[in-house]
Amino acid sequence: MSKPAEGRRRVVIEGVKPEIDSGRFPVKRIVGDNLIVEADVFADGHDQVEAKLLYKRENERDWHTVPMKPLGNDRWRGAFPVLEQGRYIYTVSGRVDHFGTWQSDLKKRIEADQNVTVDLKNGANLLAETAKLAKGPDRAKLLEWARLIVDEGSSAKQGTLAMDPGIAELVAQYPNDKLTTRYEKELVVTVDREKARFSSWYEFFPRSSSPVPGRHGTFSDCEAHLPYVVELGFDVVYFPPIHPIGQSFRKGKNNSVLAEPGDVGSPWAIGSELGGHTAIHPQLGTLAEFRSLLEKAALLGLEVALDIAFQCAPDHPWVTRHPGWFRKRADGSIQYAENPPKKYQDIYPLDFETSDWVSLWDGLRDVFLYWIGEGVKIFRVDNPHTKAFPFWEWVIPEIKSAHPDVLFLAEAFTRPRVMQRLAKLGFTQSYTYFSWRNTKEELTEYLTELTATDVKEYFGPNLWPNTPDILPEPLQSGGRPAFAARLILAATLGASYGIYGAAYELQESTPFKPGGEEYLNSEKYELKHWDIEAPESLGSLISQVNGIRKAHRALQSNERLTFHPTDNPYLICYSKATANGESVIVTAVNLDPVNTQSGWVTLDLPAIFQPADTTYQVEDLLTGSVYSWYGARNYLQLSPAALPAHILLLPSGGQTIASSKNGK
Amino acid sequence: MSKPAEGRRRVVIEGVKPEIDSGRFPVKRIVGDNLIVEADVFADGHDQVEAKLLYKRENERDWHTVPMKPLGNDRWRGAFPVLEQGRYIYTVSGRVDHFGTWQSDLKKRIEADQNVTVDLKNGANLLAETAKLAKGPDRAKLLEWARLIVDEGSSAKQGTLAMDPGIAELVAQYPNDKLTTRYEKELVVTVDREKARFSSWYEFFPRSSSPVPGRHGTFSDCEAHLPYVVELGFDVVYFPPIHPIGQSFRKGKNNSVLAEPGDVGSPWAIGSELGGHTAIHPQLGTLAEFRSLLEKAALLGLEVALDIAFQCAPDHPWVTRHPGWFRKRADGSIQYAENPPKKYQDIYPLDFETSDWVSLWDGLRDVFLYWIGEGVKIFRVDNPHTKAFPFWEWVIPEIKSAHPDVLFLAEAFTRPRVMQRLAKLGFTQSYTYFSWRNTKEELTEYLTELTATDVKEYFGPNLWPNTPDILPEPLQSGGRPAFAARLILAATLGASYGIYGAAYELQESTPFKPGGEEYLNSEKYELKHWDIEAPESLGSLISQVNGIRKAHRALQSNERLTFHPTDNPYLICYSKATANGESVIVTAVNLDPVNTQSGWVTLDLPAIFQPADTTYQVEDLLTGSVYSWYGARNYLQLSPAALPAHILLLPSGGQTIASSKNGK
Repeated sequence: MSKPAEGRRRVVIEGVKPEIDSGRFPVKRIVGDNLIVEADVFADGHDQVEAKLLYKRENERDWHTVPMKPLGNDRWRGAFPVLEQGRYIYTVSGRVDHFGTWQSDLKKRIEADQNVTVDLKNGANLLAETAKLAKGPDRAKLLEWARLIVDEGSSAKQGTLAMDPGIAELVAQYPNDKLTTRYEKELVVTVDREKARFSSWYEFFPRSSSPVPGRHGTFSDCEAHLPYVVELGFDVVYFPPIHPIGQSFRKGKNNSVLAEPGDVGSPWAIGSELGGHTAIHPQLGTLAEFRSLLEKAALLGLEVALDIAFQCAPDHPWVTRHPGWFRKRADGSIQYAENPPKKYQDIYPLDFETSDWVSLWDGLRDVFLYWIGEGVKIFRVDNPHTKAFPFWEWVIPEIKSAHPDVLFLAEAFTRPRVMQRLAKLGFTQSYTYFSWRNTKEELTEYLTELTATDVKEYFGPNLWPNTPDILPEPLQSGGRPAFAARLILAATLGASYGIYGAAYELQESTPFKPGGEEYLNSEKYELKHWDIEAPESLGSLISQVNGIRKAHRALQSNERLTFHPTDNPYLICYSKATANGESVIVTAVNLDPVNTQSGWVTLDLPAIFQPADTTYQVEDLLTGSVYSWYGARNYLQLSPAALPAHILLLPSGGQTIASSKNGK
Repeated sequence: MSKPAEGRRRVVIEGVKPEIDSGRFPVKRIVGDNLIVEADVFADGHDQVEAKLLYKRENERDWHTVPMKPLGNDRWRGAFPVLEQGRYIYTVSGRVDHFGTWQSDLKKRIEADQNVTVDLKNGANLLAETAKLAKGPDRAKLLEWARLIVDEGSSAKQGTLAMDPGIAELVAQYPNDKLTTRYEKELVVTVDREKARFSSWYEFFPRSSSPVPGRHGTFSDCEAHLPYVVELGFDVVYFPPIHPIGQSFRKGKNNSVLAEPGDVGSPWAIGSELGGHTAIHPQLGTLAEFRSLLEKAALLGLEVALDIAFQCAPDHPWVTRHPGWFRKRADGSIQYAENPPKKYQDIYPLDFETSDWVSLWDGLRDVFLYWIGEGVKIFRVDNPHTKAFPFWEWVIPEIKSAHPDVLFLAEAFTRPRVMQRLAKLGFTQSYTYFSWRNTKEELTEYLTELTATDVKEYFGPNLWPNTPDILPEPLQSGGRPAFAARLILAATLGASYGIYGAAYELQESTPFKPGGEEYLNSEKYELKHWDIEAPESLGSLISQVNGIRKAHRALQSNERLTFHPTDNPYLICYSKATANGESVIVTAVNLDPVNTQSGWVTLDLPAIFQPADTTYQVEDLLTGSVYSWYGARNYLQLSPAALPAHILLLPSGGQTIASSKNGK
């Protein structure tokens, strides 16, 4: 064993949090957050220890330092604000605080009435040592103190002087770096804009936006449709792919293998002789019209998210221009997608094991850059888990280094480790298993995993009660109450959520076949006309719920999501609150779409910032009703026929409801 | 972002266990153990993945590989045997198994009656690619197969041939390393001899070994005492320091500041003009006599553990020879030990911040090497937490690289992180908080932490019911039942345990002052004469318990320690078992030293390898009584006046007690 270059660094730093996979991946935060960092910092023996949190923007030269505070049992905590998008680096340093130790020991000696002559001299020596590291007036001050604490008349006076906290403060400014331990890793936090955490998504097919049934919708029709989306209260409009759709092996209605003449095909079968991932399907309009749509959306406070599906129809231009990007079969043809024995001859996957991978990666990156150039800042990435992980690990930071405001949503409905890895590699948000978590136990367990374990440091859940691919069974059988309940669950459990509309508002609930999750007459394969004015629409509820999300900060993050036990398996109750308790929302949902359910909830009072044994008023933001609650145990009753949920506003931070309302 | 050198490594490896602090520290195992390694290994898409565990001795050039098996949800497990002392390196590799994927897909295609002509050609191409990596007959065989699966007559025959597992096995021998992912860390396991895990320690003061009261004991007296220790069943004899004891500021009886003439002083006040850490206190004998003692011990199957206390009496030779190893006070004197306002002027601590640290480290290492040279292989290190951590991180591997059979016990009764860090840095065993864990809840919680969390990978607990510094309150007040219970707890909860004798056998229980834990008339400051033949001695119980430990492998490790709930707070019940269930011991202890306690235990049947709803016989190894138990719920009754514990032998692995007895 060779000795270390410096064997006198007595302080140990370990157990740093947050730290993902030994620091291999960044944690994620939002502009304006305080990143709280904890670490175990300690030394041998009984000397006092000082711990500091160091941080800087990625390209900054010098570190900023924040003192950390001891929490007991060698645990320390510090925090720093992340004020800009991009990447910050952080780490921890620690050192033995010799002067602090000396001051504290001196105090005990004086209290025990000991002769401290030599101890004062020891202190003077420490000051003189420190003075060597200082300059100018600080140096002079340190030397002056060193002189005074040994020269002053009475020892009592010297002691008072020696224990002056001002001295300790000045000494602390000149630590002996040689003996300071730096944590061996530098950790990264990626900072995104607010939308990364708090977003309400509305998916619709541009081609179905025409007011005239049977006519192919256009970007102009979409423009006209946007005010409706705004009225519903969403802030992200997500479009399935807008590119030319392949002709070869085009799928017909209900995913039939042979298309009939006039069948419009799947937007995910990307590319034809008219262009590929950077082209626009001519029936939707022109690039100019797309730009106009983006402008209109921006004016309305909406962002447009595009679908990035890295796969090609057989007539995609890349097939001839970059044959090396595809795998060849032994007969020289290009390998289509398969899940043997099923064949998807309308889709050519890209080959991430190609020797041409460098040009492939660049080409795919350029697709993002092209649409970023047009003003798109949010991408919903289709099936990222069927593309190589190293590609995502490269392309997302590559794009964000120049465009830190770009956000990526991973559409990976697959195994947990795979979904988590994609999030670690840089995806801002991720679809989740929420679509299949229906019971109280399932929802509690899953949302706890997402919001109260290390997963929360990097995985940004986006909850969808439906998608064009997923019509879950409870929506097929539960009718309007199920649609209402699942919407409220998504919107109050998740700071980010989305729906596939207008199928959702209009409670489209017929599956292609019983037991399946595909829609009958799926919009993926045909034009639809949705009667959004229909009286049965859930539009006004959705609008109300999104309004509540905007008005109450508690619902705008997943921090402090707390589940409160109820004595009825159909009643789920949970709360969210801001750190200071200014915004506290309790949601209760009846998961039974048929029967009225009632029962008692036992509230975790500290989690909702209410004192024990006190009466307080809660206001149902959906109905305006005000209930008088007392302490932890309260009664709930919810009728699916009326409204299967309460979204309750609580008095903020222990105040009365009146003052909380005034504060709005 | 620059691209990686190779972007086509599609397999991800993460979540590797065991791994301590991101691989910064080794895990620990015993010669003959199987090191079980798990990891998450997966790729994008749906291709089959293959995972391998790689390992080698630290200085070996080539890796050994073991296939890992999938456990579901992307988790894989493999294991390798550690057959020699020293350090092994291990890591994980993973790759996409293209040939396996192809075989599995082909099977599905054939089952679906598809035309597989092109698919067979694809397979032939894969074989031809693999052949490029092979040589000689393997290469020829691969090419022959490639020819056969496309040339054979009927496609059914070709299919059978293509799915021959023999082909897959051969292909697996020639993986494409370029596309293989290697886990980014190489992890270390330190392998010790059996004694590191299973050891029974007996501490006694050599100077008290004289058969004549008042006469200073010698190594020859110790030799004569060893058969007694053997009879008690211990295998490690641990001596407090055997070095010359300082004269200046020598402590008197009961730690009084002034020694009376004739006071023998504390053995931890090391060093006088007669020598320091490598010298022998002349009243104990000569080096030759010490060697003789070691030889006698070895003949009796005992190992001698020496105390290494890195601190000096003021007259230690180092004080004049290496003044740079000590801190100076401002008046030029050497800084004695302090805990202000207390002063310990008989002890000079070493200064690990000295600029002379390199020579200090070497000097301290040489103390270990000196005694290793004399044949000592076990060191109990006094207060390692008051010496700098970097020193231990260097010195322990430094010594073990040449002497892998040397073991270190850390005497650090301090905060959890500090104790754990010392274990991570290399200490083989550690004292624990067992001395102060008395209730069922305390014992259950603490032993679970030590044996069922990551702590078990590096922290080797050694349980002591007493030490010369620690006479816990329950022993002061609980009488013989408390001594018996605490002994049995230590010996059955811990694969390693120890007692400070003969104070323990003779149930010495008077504290220096009420509420304190120091012994009255502590042996640390005076000669003692112990009447080990006294009828009240616990010797025969201790002997019996140690005999049980030797006979039953379940008690020789801390694996599979399981606590079984009882309905009486004074009754604690737990089991240990070997992995195969051949040795299963259930221990039940009455923690009340006064009253008989009874109640029902609910046994975790799988943990004790018993079937449900079945009668089985359990034999109390302490009394020979046999009880008939049925299923999980059984009755316990223990009287402290008789014997406060059962140590029950269970039928091995579901067999009857008769056959288990035959197997002994």
